[in-house]
Amino acid sequence: MAKELTSRKENYSQWYNDLVTKADLAENSAVRGCMVIKPYGYAIWEKMHDALDKMFKDTGHVNAYFPMMIPKSFFSKEASHVKGFAKECAVVTHYRLKNDPSGKGVVVDEDAKLEEELVLRPTSETIIWNSYKNWIQSYRDLPILINQWANIIRWEMRTRLFLRTAEFLWQEGHTAHATMEEAVEETNRMIDVYAQFAENFMAMPVIKGQKTENERFAGALDTLCIEALMQDGKALQSGTSHFLGQNFAKAFDVKFLNKEGKLDYVWATSWGVSTRLIGALIMAHSDDNGLVLPPKLAPIHVVIIPIHKSPEQLDAISEKALMLKKELEGRGLCVKYDDSDTQKPGWKFAQYELKGIPVRLAIGPRDLENRTVEIVRRDTLEKKNIPMDGLSDEVVRLLDQIQRNIYDKALDFRTKNTFKADTWEEFKDIIETRGGFVSAHWDGTAETEAKIKEETKATIRCIPLDNKMEEGKCIYSGNPSAQRVLFAQAY
Amino acid sequence: MAKELTSRKENYSQWYNDLVTKADLAENSAVRGCMVIKPYGYAIWEKMHDALDKMFKDTGHVNAYFPMMIPKSFFSKEASHVKGFAKECAVVTHYRLKNDPSGKGVVVDEDAKLEEELVLRPTSETIIWNSYKNWIQSYRDLPILINQWANIIRWEMRTRLFLRTAEFLWQEGHTAHATMEEAVEETNRMIDVYAQFAENFMAMPVIKGQKTENERFAGALDTLCIEALMQDGKALQSGTSHFLGQNFAKAFDVKFLNKEGKLDYVWATSWGVSTRLIGALIMAHSDDNGLVLPPKLAPIHVVIIPIHKSPEQLDAISEKALMLKKELEGRGLCVKYDDSDTQKPGWKFAQYELKGIPVRLAIGPRDLENRTVEIVRRDTLEKKNIPMDGLSDEVVRLLDQIQRNIYDKALDFRTKNTFKADTWEEFKDIIETRGGFVSAHWDGTAETEAKIKEETKATIRCIPLDNKMEEGKCIYSGNPSAQRVLFAQAY
Repeated sequence: MAKELTSRKENYSQWYNDLVTKADLAENSAVRGCMVIKPYGYAIWEKMHDALDKMFKDTGHVNAYFPMMIPKSFFSKEASHVKGFAKECAVVTHYRLKNDPSGKGVVVDEDAKLEEELVLRPTSETIIWNSYKNWIQSYRDLPILINQWANIIRWEMRTRLFLRTAEFLWQEGHTAHATMEEAVEETNRMIDVYAQFAENFMAMPVIKGQKTENERFAGALDTLCIEALMQDGKALQSGTSHFLGQNFAKAFDVKFLNKEGKLDYVWATSWGVSTRLIGALIMAHSDDNGLVLPPKLAPIHVVIIPIHKSPEQLDAISEKALMLKKELEGRGLCVKYDDSDTQKPGWKFAQYELKGIPVRLAIGPRDLENRTVEIVRRDTLEKKNIPMDGLSDEVVRLLDQIQRNIYDKALDFRTKNTFKADTWEEFKDIIETRGGFVSAHWDGTAETEAKIKEETKATIRCIPLDNKMEEGKCIYSGNPSAQRVLFAQAY
Repeated sequence: MAKELTSRKENYSQWYNDLVTKADLAENSAVRGCMVIKPYGYAIWEKMHDALDKMFKDTGHVNAYFPMMIPKSFFSKEASHVKGFAKECAVVTHYRLKNDPSGKGVVVDEDAKLEEELVLRPTSETIIWNSYKNWIQSYRDLPILINQWANIIRWEMRTRLFLRTAEFLWQEGHTAHATMEEAVEETNRMIDVYAQFAENFMAMPVIKGQKTENERFAGALDTLCIEALMQDGKALQSGTSHFLGQNFAKAFDVKFLNKEGKLDYVWATSWGVSTRLIGALIMAHSDDNGLVLPPKLAPIHVVIIPIHKSPEQLDAISEKALMLKKELEGRGLCVKYDDSDTQKPGWKFAQYELKGIPVRLAIGPRDLENRTVEIVRRDTLEKKNIPMDGLSDEVVRLLDQIQRNIYDKALDFRTKNTFKADTWEEFKDIIETRGGFVSAHWDGTAETEAKIKEETKATIRCIPLDNKMEEGKCIYSGNPSAQRVLFAQAY
């Protein structure tokens, strides 16, 4: 089964699609651009959900739920917001079906037309700030630190499983503050939370940075992001945190009495990550044999496979295997014992490699005699025999090691694929032949940014937060520049 | 604040609305029939989610996610299904907005009309069975035991917070089986899971029963339900589990090769509970002072309030209170210490009664001297002083007692409000003057059922699963009947 994967070298994009469908993570549905997230893919999302949700709560946030249908007029209230989203809005216009008079199926009942159309949320700032208006009178009502787990609809023309779909799952934080300083601090805090999640759970190194005006969220004064590098040298924006200033407070007339007793508009942030992260996870670590999952997000940590020739052998192995399973579960691990008789061990090995189970144990009759187990780690496929005694200690240690190793590997890849370019030729050559991140001087204008994109498909991924100031000349225009920015072709 | 609640006796319906909004559980949004679930209400839903999700997983189910937009034609494939849902379907007809040529806001872009309209899921059988078709070839692919947590849209004309809203949150299980027996077993298993959840977590006694043909889910061969009695004597359907036979397999042509090597249609079930349960929870236990929450679903178990006259007193109390908080948290409890200085203790007492925190502790200077704490349980408002030493044991014991007591109280209420009626006059009199469940003979016809509903607004809530067979005469028609069924006016 795993053999059927297209290799990354042959066709990276096909490799990705093959992997997502063959590892049973997701598939396209009958609805254009919408995916079905299958149980194994959803189990990864649940792990992400639980880790992030805890991080949000630990930083003082609570969850709530707002309507998914938003009155069309709400969108028009913040000018750049509606401009950014109008082209991808799914619109509800009717609320009833009726029998087709011709007798075939059902048709939309034209008598049930809505007075005002409803838009399916492409993001929830408008509906949420319309509620906050009633919740906020004084600085005592602030801050409001709310997060929402929800489904989102953005009508994308070109879709790819997890990376870009018409419907996706995400979380969106929407906070309200009494001062600009607090809102800016929150914006920074949440990009840090995302970076920690990406690095500690996803084992995926990220660059924290600021978006250029062009790439900002529609309605934000400042957008921070985390950017990761995929194995094909393309960047993937993995999370964003927006400082919204007083834009939405002004659009929805949300004023409060501040400590000085004066009316002021409320300050806002919003921040989100989505099921897109599953796409990032896949592309950051996986190989031609299938998924490679960081243990902290793996739905199953260990699979145990019996190797036997007779039912008696299987019985003896099963007894031992179930004891080991229990021992491992006692350490908080999720363990699968696969004694199904429909497939041979070799098939199972390939299958669990495809699914990215971090550790595989195999037990045969000779292992029982020797009190040993064959252990294989998914990231390196390294194989060895170890004693059954103390197995759980060894497995826990190995899982830690795998988590660190795939992070180190991804970091090493990124280091090797981050370049400096000082001339336009050099820049174009790297982007076109090698890919990766390119650190280069830019004159700070939207025109230059647009032209570079037009000629190379590379965009400014971000201005790294820890950037050094360095005088130089824009690679495109030759005009003076105060710092390098990070370019890449991106998903 | 709590004083402002309308009493149940005065106006039960107003009491409910007051309570939901004043306890900050939910509020109406700007979108007709759609609610905002506020953080405190959502925290209860999270508790419900976690408990149910664990019960589903313990019974072998996994989660997945299917598109929320369903092609209109899918609905027509199962005749009774479309008949049941067509009248409340929100329909997406366009996928883009554009600037209003008049310059004011945005309008729907008529060039972006969908070829086939998409319906927002009122339930997901159709989209899910359209996927299962590709997943099932042989009995080896069965059973499929999938659950989905999702938002649902049903265009209701009369809405009430939690009880009936155009958008709500729920879970929907959709399982596929090789045999009828297995599917029936699953249908029963899940109504048992719901009943256990209602009784053990919600502290709400329920009657398990079978729906009449009239009240069945659109597309089911059999619908099982749990029915609870609210304090105003009305019943509330709290969960349903449907045996769908081969209806959806036939509609979507889902066949499999059975163990005998023959092609057969797959057997199905579906089952769900929703945020409606929060409405049930409120109406089952709460009183004129506010919410009464069962400890197992309370977001906060214990609130500690300092009683002080000087900052020095507060400091001394806080030191002790924070130690007690830590001790209680060590027992797995969620504890809030409210030392805010914006409100007096009396106001706080009322506020936390309104919010249904099961246990309230108050600590004053004299308590510090005597090493005591004032403890008040929310269900009975009983107050006593207890020693600080061993406090956490006492609190854990008390929480158990509260959980049991509110269940017993609700059961007692139901027992006292369940009647037998043997004549039409008796029946009408009970329904009209007392309410509650009425156990009565019915001739088994849909006509009689409809006429009883017309004349009394009472519906057959269910035919209890543990019903005794008993010959009698239908209270309405006088025709022979083999068993009593359970009537009530219902939400």
